Amino acid sequence: MKAKVHVTLKTGVLDPQGEAVRHALGQLGFDGVNGVRQGKYLELDLVETDPAKAEAEVKEMCDKLLSNTVIENYTVEIA
Amino acid sequence: MKAKVHVTLKTGVLDPQGEAVRHALGQLGFDGVNGVRQGKYLELDLVETDPAKAEAEVKEMCDKLLSNTVIENYTVEIA
Repeated sequence: MKAKVHVTLKTGVLDPQGEAVRHALGQLGFDGVNGVRQGKYLELDLVETDPAKAEAEVKEMCDKLLSNTVIENYTVEIA
Repeated sequence: MKAKVHVTLKTGVLDPQGEAVRHALGQLGFDGVNGVRQGKYLELDLVETDPAKAEAEVKEMCDKLLSNTVIENYTVEIA
């Protein structure tokens, strides 16, 4: 069973990495970019075959390791 | 107009970052993980209002800056 995890910065948290990308795009001539936010994307290949259990397990992984819940949100998709 | 970009390593390209995540999950007791692949996720806020033009522009950004097309794939979603 596969899981897709998105980890993104919460609204209002400064994103220097995204800002650096926006600046670099501007220097390449892409002026029509108001803002860039950069997050992480993970694909997990799980042994678990029950979707509900897999989702619960991945959410626990997100809380414990994959995201910093003080400043980041995460979403989990089971496929 | 918003664009969501996923940049992932091509199949067969080694992913030491994902492997490090898998190892760390194992050490935390999450044994049911066969593999982890880590990619990047970007949200762009564009001035362009035409979806087709916006998509073409973002694909050009991916080719020129956001991804390394030798080892990475990218997908663009316009929302």
